[in-house]
Amino acid sequence: MPARFYCPMIAGSHAELDESESHHALHVVKLNVGDEVELFDGSGASASASVAGVTRKTVTVNVGELRAPGPRQRPRMIVAAAPPRGDRLKSMVEKLTELGVDEFIPLRTVRSVVDPRQSKLEKLRGTVIAAMKQSGRNRLMSIHESTEFSVVLRNASSDQQAVHIAHPGDVTVNKIRTSGRDTLLLIGPEGGFTREEVLQATDYKATRIAWADGILRIETATIIFASLLMSQMRQSSPD
Amino acid sequence: MPARFYCPMIAGSHAELDESESHHALHVVKLNVGDEVELFDGSGASASASVAGVTRKTVTVNVGELRAPGPRQRPRMIVAAAPPRGDRLKSMVEKLTELGVDEFIPLRTVRSVVDPRQSKLEKLRGTVIAAMKQSGRNRLMSIHESTEFSVVLRNASSDQQAVHIAHPGDVTVNKIRTSGRDTLLLIGPEGGFTREEVLQATDYKATRIAWADGILRIETATIIFASLLMSQMRQSSPD
Repeated sequence: MPARFYCPMIAGSHAELDESESHHALHVVKLNVGDEVELFDGSGASASASVAGVTRKTVTVNVGELRAPGPRQRPRMIVAAAPPRGDRLKSMVEKLTELGVDEFIPLRTVRSVVDPRQSKLEKLRGTVIAAMKQSGRNRLMSIHESTEFSVVLRNASSDQQAVHIAHPGDVTVNKIRTSGRDTLLLIGPEGGFTREEVLQATDYKATRIAWADGILRIETATIIFASLLMSQMRQSSPD
Repeated sequence: MPARFYCPMIAGSHAELDESESHHALHVVKLNVGDEVELFDGSGASASASVAGVTRKTVTVNVGELRAPGPRQRPRMIVAAAPPRGDRLKSMVEKLTELGVDEFIPLRTVRSVVDPRQSKLEKLRGTVIAAMKQSGRNRLMSIHESTEFSVVLRNASSDQQAVHIAHPGDVTVNKIRTSGRDTLLLIGPEGGFTREEVLQATDYKATRIAWADGILRIETATIIFASLLMSQMRQSSPD
């Protein structure tokens, strides 16, 4: 498989890789003129290309035929989670990208202690692109601004999303059923959601989900509940 | 919740924490005489206790009433995976412990490149205990010696385990059904299993499972397939 690069504009016959992608192409993959590469634009489209020219800092490519995005296999999966600390957030974003989650919202809750700055979110977008290259994905997982719990819920409601909130309780995850709708997963901070937050979500008809036993860390809960929901969404999809 | 410590012998009225647990008690949790703690023995039993004495290196405790292990909620889950590199192995073991996986076998396959030494496996046992403290689990996830693929398969067969092998193919994970039996999950190295290995597993009636799209890293595949299987095992359990 040729090396893959993110390039938002691949509709024309030529393109230039941005600084970060050029750096990766020149100094990690060590591409030369004539080498074959694969480009993806983040919307799902991709194209073969070959290196047309290199300078010390930029790579230009000749772009071959555009392959349009394939049809979606399932409704959209949106994950809103209170960010865990440090490297755990990066590793979580990497794994959500691998799974094919569509959107990630850093969630602000009453008990949140981590609120990533703009520069950190920008770095995470780089993490998403690196994970897309590895996992062969063509659709970008978008990373939203850090958003208040109540705003996330209100938006989900106006978008008619099915909402699932991770909270220890009597509904274990093996009993959840997904609908054919876009789905939002809510994951709280280390201290959990407050009673008021859970009630607020319940008002929006959120389903409570929990791992049957034991306490999961934020990033573990996020990854496994997202994968369980996505797996069930595919099952209930028409194909 | 009082701080939790691993202590294999809790049947008597007194116990001494081992060196590593004493260190944690003294220098991280900073316990003093009289402080309440919780002990777990790794087999599922636990007990309240109070600190009876401390020296610079050891902690002795008075042990309260023993709480016997609760009944198992589902058959055993055994995960045999080709170890990923470096920190990814540690993070994987941590998450498998959180989920409540019963056994982890470092798997040697044709394309394996990582084979953890004895000292590394010993460290991972420490990782398991740390994760048990955090997640409130009382049953130790046992870490086996590094084992050849064919030996793992043969043992699974003589133990009548249901076997699932992660391999891109036509069976996606949302269609798998678990039986009420103990279950083995096989995860290959970065280059995947060889055709011969997959055929060998199929001879043992292994079910092939795959994420519907995209390529998952070793540790991501391990965590999500284990959680999907465990979730389905609970569904098919009598309770």
